[in-house]
Amino acid sequence: MTEPNSITRLLKPRSVAVIGASADAAKTAGRPVAYLRKHGFTGEIYPVNPRVDSIGGLTCYPDIASIPGTPDVGIVLLGAERAHQAVRELAAKGSAAAIVLASGYTETGEEGARRQQQLIEAAGSMRILGPNTIGLVNLTDNIVLSASGALEMDHFPVGGIGVVSQSGGILGALLSRAAARGIGLSKLISTSNEVDLDLADFVDHLADDADTKVIALYVESVRNPGKFRAAALKAARAGKPVVAFKIGRSEAGAKAAVSHTGALAGADSMYDALFRQVGVIRAQTFGDLLDIPVALATGRKLRGKRVAILTSTGGAGTLVSDDLGMRGFETPAPDAATAEALRALQTGDHAVLDRNPIDVTLAGLQPDLLRGAINTLLKSPSYDALAIIVGSSSLAMPELMAGAIQDCLPHSDKPVIAYVSPHAPEVAALLTQRGVPAFAAAESCTSALGAMLNVGSWQEPTFSAPAAAVLVDDLPAGSLDEAQAKQLFTRFGVPCAREVVVATPTQAEAAARELGGRVVLKILSAEITHKSDVGGVAVSLTAETVGARLLAMASEVESKAGVRPQRFLVQEMVGGGTELILGVHHDVLGTAILLGMGGITAELFKDTTMRLLPAQGGLSREDALSMARELKTWPLLDGFRGRPKADVEALVDAIVAFSKMAAQLGERLVEAEINPVFVLPQGQGVRAADGVVVLA
Amino acid sequence: MTEPNSITRLLKPRSVAVIGASADAAKTAGRPVAYLRKHGFTGEIYPVNPRVDSIGGLTCYPDIASIPGTPDVGIVLLGAERAHQAVRELAAKGSAAAIVLASGYTETGEEGARRQQQLIEAAGSMRILGPNTIGLVNLTDNIVLSASGALEMDHFPVGGIGVVSQSGGILGALLSRAAARGIGLSKLISTSNEVDLDLADFVDHLADDADTKVIALYVESVRNPGKFRAAALKAARAGKPVVAFKIGRSEAGAKAAVSHTGALAGADSMYDALFRQVGVIRAQTFGDLLDIPVALATGRKLRGKRVAILTSTGGAGTLVSDDLGMRGFETPAPDAATAEALRALQTGDHAVLDRNPIDVTLAGLQPDLLRGAINTLLKSPSYDALAIIVGSSSLAMPELMAGAIQDCLPHSDKPVIAYVSPHAPEVAALLTQRGVPAFAAAESCTSALGAMLNVGSWQEPTFSAPAAAVLVDDLPAGSLDEAQAKQLFTRFGVPCAREVVVATPTQAEAAARELGGRVVLKILSAEITHKSDVGGVAVSLTAETVGARLLAMASEVESKAGVRPQRFLVQEMVGGGTELILGVHHDVLGTAILLGMGGITAELFKDTTMRLLPAQGGLSREDALSMARELKTWPLLDGFRGRPKADVEALVDAIVAFSKMAAQLGERLVEAEINPVFVLPQGQGVRAADGVVVLA
Repeated sequence: MTEPNSITRLLKPRSVAVIGASADAAKTAGRPVAYLRKHGFTGEIYPVNPRVDSIGGLTCYPDIASIPGTPDVGIVLLGAERAHQAVRELAAKGSAAAIVLASGYTETGEEGARRQQQLIEAAGSMRILGPNTIGLVNLTDNIVLSASGALEMDHFPVGGIGVVSQSGGILGALLSRAAARGIGLSKLISTSNEVDLDLADFVDHLADDADTKVIALYVESVRNPGKFRAAALKAARAGKPVVAFKIGRSEAGAKAAVSHTGALAGADSMYDALFRQVGVIRAQTFGDLLDIPVALATGRKLRGKRVAILTSTGGAGTLVSDDLGMRGFETPAPDAATAEALRALQTGDHAVLDRNPIDVTLAGLQPDLLRGAINTLLKSPSYDALAIIVGSSSLAMPELMAGAIQDCLPHSDKPVIAYVSPHAPEVAALLTQRGVPAFAAAESCTSALGAMLNVGSWQEPTFSAPAAAVLVDDLPAGSLDEAQAKQLFTRFGVPCAREVVVATPTQAEAAARELGGRVVLKILSAEITHKSDVGGVAVSLTAETVGARLLAMASEVESKAGVRPQRFLVQEMVGGGTELILGVHHDVLGTAILLGMGGITAELFKDTTMRLLPAQGGLSREDALSMARELKTWPLLDGFRGRPKADVEALVDAIVAFSKMAAQLGERLVEAEINPVFVLPQGQGVRAADGVVVLA
Repeated sequence: MTEPNSITRLLKPRSVAVIGASADAAKTAGRPVAYLRKHGFTGEIYPVNPRVDSIGGLTCYPDIASIPGTPDVGIVLLGAERAHQAVRELAAKGSAAAIVLASGYTETGEEGARRQQQLIEAAGSMRILGPNTIGLVNLTDNIVLSASGALEMDHFPVGGIGVVSQSGGILGALLSRAAARGIGLSKLISTSNEVDLDLADFVDHLADDADTKVIALYVESVRNPGKFRAAALKAARAGKPVVAFKIGRSEAGAKAAVSHTGALAGADSMYDALFRQVGVIRAQTFGDLLDIPVALATGRKLRGKRVAILTSTGGAGTLVSDDLGMRGFETPAPDAATAEALRALQTGDHAVLDRNPIDVTLAGLQPDLLRGAINTLLKSPSYDALAIIVGSSSLAMPELMAGAIQDCLPHSDKPVIAYVSPHAPEVAALLTQRGVPAFAAAESCTSALGAMLNVGSWQEPTFSAPAAAVLVDDLPAGSLDEAQAKQLFTRFGVPCAREVVVATPTQAEAAARELGGRVVLKILSAEITHKSDVGGVAVSLTAETVGARLLAMASEVESKAGVRPQRFLVQEMVGGGTELILGVHHDVLGTAILLGMGGITAELFKDTTMRLLPAQGGLSREDALSMARELKTWPLLDGFRGRPKADVEALVDAIVAFSKMAAQLGERLVEAEINPVFVLPQGQGVRAADGVVVLA
C-alpha cells in the first residue's frame, strides 16, 4: 500500500512547491509561501510563477518541470481551468500529493463536474487534497500548507486535537477559535470536495499519529461509509475519541419515503446510528466541536455523575448546577467529612459549606485556600468531577490562580473543568493551557462532562452470526401479500400471529374455530396496502360472526377499491401487548434496522431508533436491547405505572432475527416492515400482526 | 406615592455617601469611590470612615451624621453585623435609598434572617437595594454605585438594554460580556436578597425610562408575582420587550437557587406560563440573555420566516442555514428577479446565485459589491431578514466592511444580523455597535431572529367574565366523591357524562336502562381515589349484566380495600373521543389551569401546558384555544392521519368554564382534576368522565 506513505508525506513534507505563488503576501496567492516561512517550515520551498524571479528571497521557478528535485507536496493556486495541468506535472515529478485550492468544481454544476473528472485523471496515482480546499496545517511540526486568513495569527497552541473538516472556511474558524481559547491542536486538514483523499483517510491516519489524542470532525456528508466505519473503529480501538459535528440536521425527512419506516427515518438519524455504532461522539452544536475535544484531550474520564462546584460567586455556580441538572448530572452536598475538611481550611465567615455549589467566598485570591479546597473536593468520595467557577474577584492574579489549580491536578485523575463567569478570555486560555478546560457557557461545561462520561463506556460493537441459509427462492419479486410476508418473517424466526388464508365464509368459520377465541378478518392482497382505508379489516369476530362479515367486507372493499377481494386472512386476535414497529431502512449510509413505538401518539413524537447492519451478520443481542432501551417510551415495556413488564427477551430475539433476514437478503429486500409487532407480557413472547415486504 | 421618586433618586442620585469606604482602591471597600470618579460621576461623594481623613482628595467623614447635607443614596460597605446601624442613620438623614452589599442574611440561615428583619426595621420608609447586592450601574448617566470587579474596565458601550439581576455576580458577568461584544446597556441593577426593592420595581421603573428599549432579567425567583405581572404588562404596553433567563429549570438548579437566595421557587413550568401570559420572552440559555436583547434593541421586527444568508465562506453559511432550519425558518433560493439583480453586480466567477446561502465569493473586500448585494437582498420580496456571514477574508478591513453594511440599514426595516465565523471579537463588536447584532454561534442567530419574530405577536391578555355566582355552599369540605365532583363541574358549565347513583343491583339495572347503550359501573367513595386498583371500575356493561357485576364488585373491593362499598355510579360509556386531563395547580406564583393529553404515552412525554388565572375572572377563549394548540399532541385533536377533527370549540368552552370555577372558588378549591375529559368529534361536545375535587 502506498497510501499511508503518501499521506505522511502530505502532512509532513520535506519540500513544498507552490504553483501560482504571488510575491504579494497580502494576496491569497501570496499567503502559502509567507505562511510556510512565518510558521517555521524548515524544508525546501519552491515557488512557481513564470512572471516572477524570486519571492521573499526564494528562487521562483517558471514551471514545475524546472524545480530541482521532487517536491513532496504541490500547493496548486491556479484556477479551475488550469489546475489540472499543474496536477499532471506534479504527478510526473513524483510528488506524493497535490493540494488544489481552486473552487469551481462539482459544487458549481456540470461544467465543474467535468473539470473535477479531469483533475482525477491528471493525478494518476498521486493523491489529491481538495479541490476547493483551504489546505492543511500540521501544528506539531510547524508546517502550514494553507492560504487561510486564519493563519495571519502569530501563534497557535500546539496540542492533541486533530481536526478534519469538509469545509475550508470552517477549518479556519476552528483554528482561530481554538487558538484564542488556548486549545492546542495537532493537525488540521480541510478535505472539501474529496475528489480523492477523504475524511476517512485522515481519521485512519490520525489514529496512528502519536501527537493526536482526540479527533474532531466537521462533516457535511460521509462519502464512503464502509471506509469511515473502519477508520473510526481503528481510532476507537487506539483509545482516541472521535467527535463529529454534522450539518444537514434539518434536512431530515427530505428523502422520499415509500413506507412508513422511510417517513420516520430521515438520513440524519442514520448518521446518529452510524456514529453511535462506531463510538463517534456526536457534537450537538458547532461549539461542542471544540468544547468536547478539549475536555477529552485531558485524558481524564468521568466515572460517575456527581459534580462538585467550587465557587466564589453564587450566581454563576447556580447557572452551572442548573444546566448540569438538566442533563442528569447530580450536584450533591458535601458529605460530613468533606464539609469538615473544608471548614478546617478556615474560609470566609459566610462561607456556606453544607451545600453545592460550595461557596468559599474567597476574599480576594488566597492560593493556599484554593489549593486546599480543590484537593479536598478531588479527594472526596462524594464527587466524580470538579467544576471551578472563576468570578471577577479571581481575575486579579490569573497566573497565581491558574497555578494553584494546576498544582492540584497530579493528585487526582478526576476531571477538573472551569467556568469563567465574566468576559475574561485570557484567563480561560491560561487555564485551558494549564490542563483545565475552561468554558464561557454552562452548556459547554455540561457537554464536556457528558462526553467525558460517555467516552469510557464505548464497547467494540458485536454482531450475531448470520442465519443458517433460509430458502426464499420460492417467494416472488415485488410486493408480497401479508401471508407471504409473514411466512418470510417466520422462516427467519420472527414469531407471527397464527392465521389461515380463506376464500369463503365456510372456510373462515372453520379457521376461526381452529384458532379459537376472537379473530381478526382482513383482505389478503399484495396491491392494497392500506387495508383499513377500504374497509378491509374487522376485529373481535367469532366463528359465528366471521362468515357474514366476510361477505359484507367483500362488498364494501369492492365498492371502495373497485376490486372484489378473493382471499382473506383469519388471524388470532392478539391483545394485552405493546405495539411496536420493526422495519428496514436503506440509505446511502447503508441498511439499518428501525425500531419504533407503535400507536398514533408515539408516531407524533417520532419515537424511533436505528442501527446499521454490521458487515458480518445480524445485530447483536446487546444492540437489539439497547435499541429498545433508547426509545423514549421504553418505560411502557418496563412496567411503567403498574403495567406488566413486557417480554423484552422475546423482542430482542425478534429484532435479531429480523436483522438476520435483512442481512441475508441484502439488496433483494427492498422494503420490509412489521407494523405492529405486539410485545406481550413477560414469558408470552411477541407476535408480528401485520407486515409489508417488497422483494427485488 | 413616594416610590417612583425614590427609585429615580437611587438610579440617578445627585449625591452619594459611601459608608465604610477604604482609601485602598484595590480593596472591595475602596472600589465604589474609585469607580464613581473613574466613570465620571459629577455629583457629591461623601466617603464615611472614622479612621481616614480623606480618600483620593475627598473629605472623609467620621460618621453619617457629620455629612453636610442629605445624600440621595448611601452605599453601605459594612458587614452584616453593623450594616443596619448605617441604614438607620441614612434613613434619619432623609436619604432615598441604601445599597447594602453585605452578605450573611437569609441566604445563610436563621441568624441571617433575623439580621435581615433588623435591616428592614432600620430602614423605615427609606428604600433598600440588597442586601448581598453588587449595587447598580447607570450607564446612561455615568453613575456607578457598585463594587463589582467588572467595573475595572475603562469603557462600556451605552445603549438601550436595561438589566435587572437577582445575582450580583451575574450582573458583573453580563456587564463585562456585553462590553466586550459592543452591546450597549442603559442601567444594570442587582436586586439579590430583595429585602425591599425587587425585580418588579425596576421593571416598572425601566418601562418609563426613556433610555431603555429592552429589559433583560436574570431571575432566580419572582417573589411578588402580582407586582411582577403588572410591571411586565406595563413594559409590554410601552412596547419594551422583556427578556428573562430563569434558573432553577432542573431540580439541582432549583435547590441551588433556593440556597442562594433563601426564596421559595415555584414550579419551572409555572414560570413558563407566567412569562408567556405577560409577554416576557424566556431566554433558553444564559447566552440568549444578551443575544436576544441586542437583536430586539435594534427595534426591527421580523414579519416572516424567510432568511437570506449572504456569505463569502460556504461552510459557515450552511451552519447558520442548518440551525435556522431546525427551528422552522426557511432559507429559500432567490427569486428570478433577485438572482438577476445579484448577477448584475458582477460578483466573482464562481459565485453561485441560484441557491441560499448566497455565496458571493468576494475576492477580498469590495464594499460596493457588498452594498449592492445587501441592498438587493433587503429589497427582495423573497426575504424577511438578512444574515451576513463574516469570514476571515472580510476581516482585513473591518471598518470598511462594517461601514458598507451600516450604509444599507436605513433603506430597509428588515432585521439584519451577522455571524462571525473566525475568532474576531473586535469585528463583531464593531458590527454590533453599528446596529448589526453580531454573533459567534449559529444558535445565537436563530435565537435572535426567533425573538424578533415573536416580539411582534404579543397581544394584551384578556379574560372571560366571572361566572354568575354559583351556589356551592351545600358541598362539604374535604374530598368530594365523584358524583359530587361532577355536580360541581356541571354547575359551572363543564359537561359531564350522564350518570346515576345507585346502591342495589335493581337500581343499577334501572339506571342502565335509563342511560341506554353500554354503561360503566364504579364504586362511589370520597376515600378511595384509585378505584381501579381495588377492582372498583367495570366497563362495557349492559342492563342485563350490571346487576351481577355490582355484587361481584362489592365483594372484590371489600377484599382488597377492607371496606364494602355502599354506593355505586352507573355512567354512560363515552367512546370515540380523545382523552385529556384538565386540572388546577396551586403554586407560590398563583393558581393555574393545567391541560394535558391523557393516556399513558402522552404522560411519558409530559405533554401538558398551563395558564395562570387572570386576576379578574376565568381564562379567555383565546387562551384556552392556545393551550390546546400548544400540546405536542394537538394534531390528535386536529384530524391527524385521517382521524375525525375533535370538538375543539366545546373543549375551549369546558376549559373556560373550569377556569371560572377555579376563579370563583379561589383558595377553597384545594384540588380539582377531570381525568379524563373526552373530547368527541366535532359537534358532539366533551364529557368529563371522572373527577377529583378537594374543598377547603
